Amino acid sequence: MFTKCSQRAANIESFKVMDLLKRARELESQGCDVVHLEVGEPDFATAEPVAEAAIAAIRAGRTQYTPAAGIPELREAIAGYYQTRYDLNVDPVQVLVTPGASGALLLAFALLADTGQTFMMSDPGYPCNRQFLRFLQAGAQLVPTGPAERFQLTEALISEHWQSQTAGVLLASPSNPTGTLVPPEQMQAIAQRVRQLGGQLIVDELYHGLTYGADAMTALQVDPDVFVINSFSKYFGMTGWRLGWLIAPPEAIKMMEKMAQNLFISPTTVSQYAALAAFQPDSLAIFEGRRQAFEERRNFLVQGLKSLGFAVPAMPDGAFYVYADASHLTDDSFNFCWSLLEENHIAVTPGADFGQFEASRYVRFSYTTGLVQIEKALQRMAKRFSATR
Amino acid sequence: MFTKCSQRAANIESFKVMDLLKRARELESQGCDVVHLEVGEPDFATAEPVAEAAIAAIRAGRTQYTPAAGIPELREAIAGYYQTRYDLNVDPVQVLVTPGASGALLLAFALLADTGQTFMMSDPGYPCNRQFLRFLQAGAQLVPTGPAERFQLTEALISEHWQSQTAGVLLASPSNPTGTLVPPEQMQAIAQRVRQLGGQLIVDELYHGLTYGADAMTALQVDPDVFVINSFSKYFGMTGWRLGWLIAPPEAIKMMEKMAQNLFISPTTVSQYAALAAFQPDSLAIFEGRRQAFEERRNFLVQGLKSLGFAVPAMPDGAFYVYADASHLTDDSFNFCWSLLEENHIAVTPGADFGQFEASRYVRFSYTTGLVQIEKALQRMAKRFSATR
Repeated sequence: MFTKCSQRAANIESFKVMDLLKRARELESQGCDVVHLEVGEPDFATAEPVAEAAIAAIRAGRTQYTPAAGIPELREAIAGYYQTRYDLNVDPVQVLVTPGASGALLLAFALLADTGQTFMMSDPGYPCNRQFLRFLQAGAQLVPTGPAERFQLTEALISEHWQSQTAGVLLASPSNPTGTLVPPEQMQAIAQRVRQLGGQLIVDELYHGLTYGADAMTALQVDPDVFVINSFSKYFGMTGWRLGWLIAPPEAIKMMEKMAQNLFISPTTVSQYAALAAFQPDSLAIFEGRRQAFEERRNFLVQGLKSLGFAVPAMPDGAFYVYADASHLTDDSFNFCWSLLEENHIAVTPGADFGQFEASRYVRFSYTTGLVQIEKALQRMAKRFSATR
Repeated sequence: MFTKCSQRAANIESFKVMDLLKRARELESQGCDVVHLEVGEPDFATAEPVAEAAIAAIRAGRTQYTPAAGIPELREAIAGYYQTRYDLNVDPVQVLVTPGASGALLLAFALLADTGQTFMMSDPGYPCNRQFLRFLQAGAQLVPTGPAERFQLTEALISEHWQSQTAGVLLASPSNPTGTLVPPEQMQAIAQRVRQLGGQLIVDELYHGLTYGADAMTALQVDPDVFVINSFSKYFGMTGWRLGWLIAPPEAIKMMEKMAQNLFISPTTVSQYAALAAFQPDSLAIFEGRRQAFEERRNFLVQGLKSLGFAVPAMPDGAFYVYADASHLTDDSFNFCWSLLEENHIAVTPGADFGQFEASRYVRFSYTTGLVQIEKALQRMAKRFSATR
């Protein structure tokens, strides 16, 4: 029996939705038609030009190690994307290509947080951020946020909660699980405040491109020294290719590159060549079409949920999630999720996966499935709730 | 100017060969014909059946996230490989598919080494191991090994150097940079001793398959609780695909899977489907042909180096490296490597990249290039040494 285990490993938590997913698969293997509204990845296949670029790279034998920071062409293409999308000058030496945004988050926290230090972040938030910091024997300082702040940290909250061991602040805009954006004037005020406090601001911009109103600004527009994390997974629809990036000051990139060299050797080569094609006009046209589909789903799902008695206290600006308040329907969203799965064959993620603050009120619905499936889920819930009234 | 930097990040070292590589590229851009004997990756392209499997996976849309531990088919195929290659029963639940062996090493150390603990390993050895442990605020305990032990730890050395903070022992068989194997009776004695001492044994078997005499045994044959690290990079020639694996007791795999879920989400999907084809008979036939080519190169290079005045105190059993003693030719192998590059346009790796113990005597020659290139390097050195005599 294996019994050795570091404190670090013991502290890491798995996602609560994993058990639920396992049960969903069991139900499916028994023939049940489960509607998946729990998944954090787009249901669209890899865009044709991206897939073809990957195949061309394989045929050309581009399958050896690359520089740890990524192939120069991709670093240049990413820098160029900031020019065309945000009208912002980014030098390719500020770009580090990473194995997913996961790799970028690990490197950024590893560079910025010493043992015992903390990064401030909103509760609710993406669960892995807390685990990255635990892995590094640093910590996450969760600050409760609710509908009043649209689930985002503010300059006032940061000032109020700053402590001597706080190394910096992590924002996510749009956020997972709420889809809300940090407004530009808040972004500016936060960047200034964190700088005054001697900390470092990291902004997770993973869902950029997937916004349904005004485009999101990048935090680099208000402060060139912010660390920005992004990914080819969401807007560019390349989840399984495991490719992300990080923008930071050149001296910081050098330090993280040194760590990346040792920890990862390099990001997957074929994925890097595939990603080059993601910036082509034909690819971007496909992504824009998908963005519109997501917007339609968001509107349909939010309206449907509201009509069933859920509250959606902050209309999501982006990403593909609705963080719905189920407190009119249940006083325990975790059990509610389980019963939705068992009784109605609908898989959703409980608020408990995203933090502690009022987590038992909330459920995250992902609209990473088509309108037909979303409608099916809404109908099943309508039937359930009318029966229990 | 970016000035924040954790102690952890400051402690991580980059490879010394990197500056040398940069200079080699400069020379090449000036038209110099540099012979590369420094590279740690096979020069052979991805085997055709593996490349075709990758392309088929892309066309079939297999590009979404996978389970953190890898697709079940691949875990089964890897387990099956232990049956056919080593006549050993491994349960697929003991297999964790990782982003390269790098991912496996990070997870294993993270599970086994608490802050302040150390892992014992031979000096010389693969440099990243020390950096993984530093990254985790644990440490590497380097034990000097020389020709007498064929650069490998022994049961006696382990007993002698064991300390209260030692969490375990890492062996590499065949080793990088020396290519030597741990003999079966030593492997058994070491496994027993480490168990008695309450530590955990990790064995890096990355170069398995690339041996030039008897096949290497897997450490699992002497102790089913050993952690074994392996990779698709070397024998299977899939470096840029970033895929490795780890065999460990099921309870340990569960703990590491939980960490992998948070740190990596999953290994690259297309790489996993490609790797399935690596176990097919037609692929294995290709790899066997390449193994024979490596053997021929080894014999040619070792003989050539000896005739030039290098000593090769331990004939490499495997991998694609010769760890040559250059002390008859120089008293500083680091400067020697630089002058070989500048004057003879030959790139090799200085001993200093692999540890401190007598590192200034040694140079690592990789035979990851064809016989024609190896001969060219030998001729250039012959000219140099005859001129200076």
